[in-house]
Amino acid sequence: MYKENIKVMDCTIRDGGLMNKWQFDNDFVKAVYDGCVEAGIDYMEIGYKSSEKSFSRKEVGPWKFCDDKDLRKVVGDNNNKLKLSAMADIGRIDPEDIPPKSESVLDMIRVACYAHQIDKAVWLAEHCMDKGYEVTINLMAVSKVNEHVLDEALADLAKSKVSTIYVVDSFGSMYFEDIQQLVQKYIKALPGKQIGIHAHNNMQLAMSNTITSLNGGVTMLDATLLGMGRGAGNCPMEILIAFLKNPKYRLLPLLDVIQKYIHPLQKQIDWGYHIPYLITGALNEHPRSAIKWMDSENKNDFVSFMKEMHDYELLE
Amino acid sequence: MYKENIKVMDCTIRDGGLMNKWQFDNDFVKAVYDGCVEAGIDYMEIGYKSSEKSFSRKEVGPWKFCDDKDLRKVVGDNNNKLKLSAMADIGRIDPEDIPPKSESVLDMIRVACYAHQIDKAVWLAEHCMDKGYEVTINLMAVSKVNEHVLDEALADLAKSKVSTIYVVDSFGSMYFEDIQQLVQKYIKALPGKQIGIHAHNNMQLAMSNTITSLNGGVTMLDATLLGMGRGAGNCPMEILIAFLKNPKYRLLPLLDVIQKYIHPLQKQIDWGYHIPYLITGALNEHPRSAIKWMDSENKNDFVSFMKEMHDYELLE
Repeated sequence: MYKENIKVMDCTIRDGGLMNKWQFDNDFVKAVYDGCVEAGIDYMEIGYKSSEKSFSRKEVGPWKFCDDKDLRKVVGDNNNKLKLSAMADIGRIDPEDIPPKSESVLDMIRVACYAHQIDKAVWLAEHCMDKGYEVTINLMAVSKVNEHVLDEALADLAKSKVSTIYVVDSFGSMYFEDIQQLVQKYIKALPGKQIGIHAHNNMQLAMSNTITSLNGGVTMLDATLLGMGRGAGNCPMEILIAFLKNPKYRLLPLLDVIQKYIHPLQKQIDWGYHIPYLITGALNEHPRSAIKWMDSENKNDFVSFMKEMHDYELLE
Repeated sequence: MYKENIKVMDCTIRDGGLMNKWQFDNDFVKAVYDGCVEAGIDYMEIGYKSSEKSFSRKEVGPWKFCDDKDLRKVVGDNNNKLKLSAMADIGRIDPEDIPPKSESVLDMIRVACYAHQIDKAVWLAEHCMDKGYEVTINLMAVSKVNEHVLDEALADLAKSKVSTIYVVDSFGSMYFEDIQQLVQKYIKALPGKQIGIHAHNNMQLAMSNTITSLNGGVTMLDATLLGMGRGAGNCPMEILIAFLKNPKYRLLPLLDVIQKYIHPLQKQIDWGYHIPYLITGALNEHPRSAIKWMDSENKNDFVSFMKEMHDYELLE
């Protein structure tokens, strides 16, 4: 599908890092970076910008902070077309943690927030713009938000200087119609802005929901190699690129890094479609209880997990 | 989604058997059968009807033949609402292999054929109707068929007495628009007939394509437990049932059999989403080369597999 204004964002390290506390070694991150460069991917999200006050380096790897000294060990001065992004969570970062763009290899800061944090998110995003970065706001967990609250948040975003806003299916709970209606709502409420999609794969719909968004007018598409990401993971990059058949992208460099680095890691980190993630997704719940269950010795006792869920009768 | 006329068909044993030559023991098949009964599934396809001249019992298990004596060891007289189906491949069965319905616990014969076999398929299906069975015709590999050949086949099917015709995505190569257009074509060409969908998961679109078909007017939905089936497998039954939220179905009995029987089997039989299946699907090729590759010691060398494919430059 040839659409000139499509942008693809690789979130393998940032979203995948939620499964191993960003404990990737430099070789691994370099391989993902090189693969994205070779494949012609537009953006790579290499981790989070976070305050050292919020997290300890004893617990989380360097990609939770994205200090330039750590980034440059992998990407040098990033003399490539690939743009680099880091995500910032409202409440986990201070403005002074973000250097001026002139001192950083990062090109973009994506601000993740809940609807009730929208004012803080707009302030931080515009602060990052003032420092020279491209920015997006990724409004999370909207499947749990009342429509009027969402409408107010979108009205605030419409008034902001932020030029890209993401539709985020945080819980992997959205079906075709949900995505279609949400994309229509965002496009209508946010004239002149670019819309992105970030999908999760709890019901094996991440790829489909990404295409549905694209067909609805979304142009910024998140994906990860082999779908690596929190819980059930994300839209698999290799499926998306095979679908797009866009001359600016290449599939083979992605298969190469999947083969050498990502697929072997799946033996240690169990992301992807598993029944507990289906259950939280179908119940429109945060995946944290499923992730905890998957880390326990009961991981394969699907029936007990379902019976532990509040409101499981909705699916019984 | 409440639609009174929805029918769900479990193909776990029949399609999953393509991965282990139908070598399931009776306990396994009984567990799937009991799960389907408890869950309120409408049909269970318990294997193939085949001629003993076409296959050797030394190589394939009893579910490749579905002799009533073998079936009754598992289902007794099937004094349940669940209807039992067997698939018949044109060229692999003789009419005399099919007993009169009055002597069989089977309720339905599904005739699988390619477009050029349509006359033989209609003859066999009507022969089965005469013997007392419900029948369907499942027209395979239509993604490789010229449009006028498909239109002629559909015209022949329209004239037949066969009341249910399946849209089959044999290679897992179909995207949203492909499925949507094909469903529209079948519905228009086959007035008064019930349409079914049988999807494969090469591009993680089997669930999505099944919903798309349902929204387009298809009422007979194929799925398998944990997606077990040839290559990348099928639409996962548990995701479909969680989506439908139809009061006639229950999810927990399906999770129970998945937990005890299906999920443990996945350690031995590697069905599901894997890169070689993505490649054959995206290239609209039969999965046989990917299945062979997945059985070799090179199974995780995705780059070499892709380079071995004719026309791989289409995706490169």
